[in-house]
Amino acid sequence: MDKLLCGVDLGGSKLSAGLFRPDGTLIEKRLIHSHISMDEEGITRSVVDLINNLLNSLGIGEDSLAGIGIGVAGHVNFHKGIIITASNFKTSFCNYPLKEKIAASFNVPVYMDNDANAQALGELRFGDNRNYSHIVFLTISTGVGCGIIIDRKLIRGMTGTAGEIGHTIIDPGSELQCTCGNYGCLMALSSGKALPQLYDRYLAQGMTSSIGINRENVGTLDGIIIKKGVDSGDGISKRVLEDSADAIGTGLYNLFQLLNPEVFIIGGGLINLGYPYLERIEKRYLSLVKNMMYDKVDFKLPSHGNDTGLLGAAALILEENNE
Amino acid sequence: MDKLLCGVDLGGSKLSAGLFRPDGTLIEKRLIHSHISMDEEGITRSVVDLINNLLNSLGIGEDSLAGIGIGVAGHVNFHKGIIITASNFKTSFCNYPLKEKIAASFNVPVYMDNDANAQALGELRFGDNRNYSHIVFLTISTGVGCGIIIDRKLIRGMTGTAGEIGHTIIDPGSELQCTCGNYGCLMALSSGKALPQLYDRYLAQGMTSSIGINRENVGTLDGIIIKKGVDSGDGISKRVLEDSADAIGTGLYNLFQLLNPEVFIIGGGLINLGYPYLERIEKRYLSLVKNMMYDKVDFKLPSHGNDTGLLGAAALILEENNE
Repeated sequence: MDKLLCGVDLGGSKLSAGLFRPDGTLIEKRLIHSHISMDEEGITRSVVDLINNLLNSLGIGEDSLAGIGIGVAGHVNFHKGIIITASNFKTSFCNYPLKEKIAASFNVPVYMDNDANAQALGELRFGDNRNYSHIVFLTISTGVGCGIIIDRKLIRGMTGTAGEIGHTIIDPGSELQCTCGNYGCLMALSSGKALPQLYDRYLAQGMTSSIGINRENVGTLDGIIIKKGVDSGDGISKRVLEDSADAIGTGLYNLFQLLNPEVFIIGGGLINLGYPYLERIEKRYLSLVKNMMYDKVDFKLPSHGNDTGLLGAAALILEENNE
Repeated sequence: MDKLLCGVDLGGSKLSAGLFRPDGTLIEKRLIHSHISMDEEGITRSVVDLINNLLNSLGIGEDSLAGIGIGVAGHVNFHKGIIITASNFKTSFCNYPLKEKIAASFNVPVYMDNDANAQALGELRFGDNRNYSHIVFLTISTGVGCGIIIDRKLIRGMTGTAGEIGHTIIDPGSELQCTCGNYGCLMALSSGKALPQLYDRYLAQGMTSSIGINRENVGTLDGIIIKKGVDSGDGISKRVLEDSADAIGTGLYNLFQLLNPEVFIIGGGLINLGYPYLERIEKRYLSLVKNMMYDKVDFKLPSHGNDTGLLGAAALILEENNE
């Protein structure tokens, strides 16, 4: 039997692991949330335990694995196997050598990259979109990031941090500040983390929420509440959806001019805002592109829904020229 | 003797051709301006004549050439060998098959690309910067464009138009409009073409020019006049230099986040604004980068001064995997 791929998706609220056949067929997966309150060492142990539990439940050993791939929601120095920093965990993972830590517990190759990079590779290897050579996988979640594939290769750059579109400046005069300190980056204008500020701008202007949000409780807002607000006719929720979508549309337009991809695949939690959100993103993109798109760029959703992150992590194992 | 490289640099105000040894040593070059008033067919004939004149002056035939490379100041469909559009010529070159037209007059391979792409390849092949693997070559001239090299390969994308940083939006609320119709693209905020509008904003606010520029003659402004203005203490000229530099610095920061290059090479006519301009660009870049630059990104000038465009065009001939 061909060896199996073990993919690990390490996010702020979910830690999951899955075993796949080399063709991407899922065999078994596990999901936990108990890592949320842990420090780096605790999370490392949780990852090791999760993998061992998966292997034990199938009655196989690590000699059945071709490798372990880990996708992390954070800045990753791919070349060194280090999490430089991550803002969605209790711990900041400051320069934490997670790859080496995990590798110490197994005798198979371990690969680690940023989750958006991994997901882009997953689409290239296992997705419905595998015939594309130039792919941008955008993830709109707590933060905003992207994985860039050109000529069927993932672009990582010098440190391995390429794809940080969330920190690109698209409106320097904005009063919305990102966690990085800058004003008007894409993340500050569109991400899950930005929803409270986006909503609060309208409250400050005197608009009234019809879903009980005020300037005291606005910090509790997330994509699920905005979705309910939009569905129930809350005017501010609709404006926030449009503001986020317009910012994302501008970001995709900038990527179009810089990289000229064939397809934008849009993933992450905020796509649950649904069709009105995705339609608005594409509308803004097209309003900027005008007559400058000489070959049509496609807009797609991820091929594998909730398993996109796991499959992406597994795809890291199969990437050519892995270091 | 190894065959020679023939590079052609086709710009709005200058058309030049040069013959190089395979190591990039210049043998002979020619420069004309008479193409300025011509249509597509006239410019095509000028290119052919210029190459033939070069060959004749050295008493050699086209069998001495390894190929002809052409760098064009315009949108180029690299894969089809077509100039999609060019805004700096009397003619717009709308979907003009220049590559094929030139190839009809010679029995050697002909390659054609956007001039910024060619110059990036020139730096990779012949520049002082050839040890870098990840290079962004930015040209700030009548327009603004860049050539992107990642893992020692030029990024072109689907149509071959990647690198159009001049059209990325960095200030959507700006009143400055680009020729593309959008507001607040990098080109509208920083290029040679933008200098009159940048200057006029201050005149409209009531500031007075000390170099005789008013709202009637402001359209005649170019980089040379701004340089003189800065040198003679004209307050508006200094502001315009700073505005352009700040926009470029923001654009480079965005490229840093997206591509994580090792070096920015900054070329084009506006670099003649000199040290205060380049220093301001880097200052703005660093003010945005903050603590997010994990490995230092270098700032450099082009390696070959006025021959950068010609050498870049010649480098197209040596590019691996040419189609």
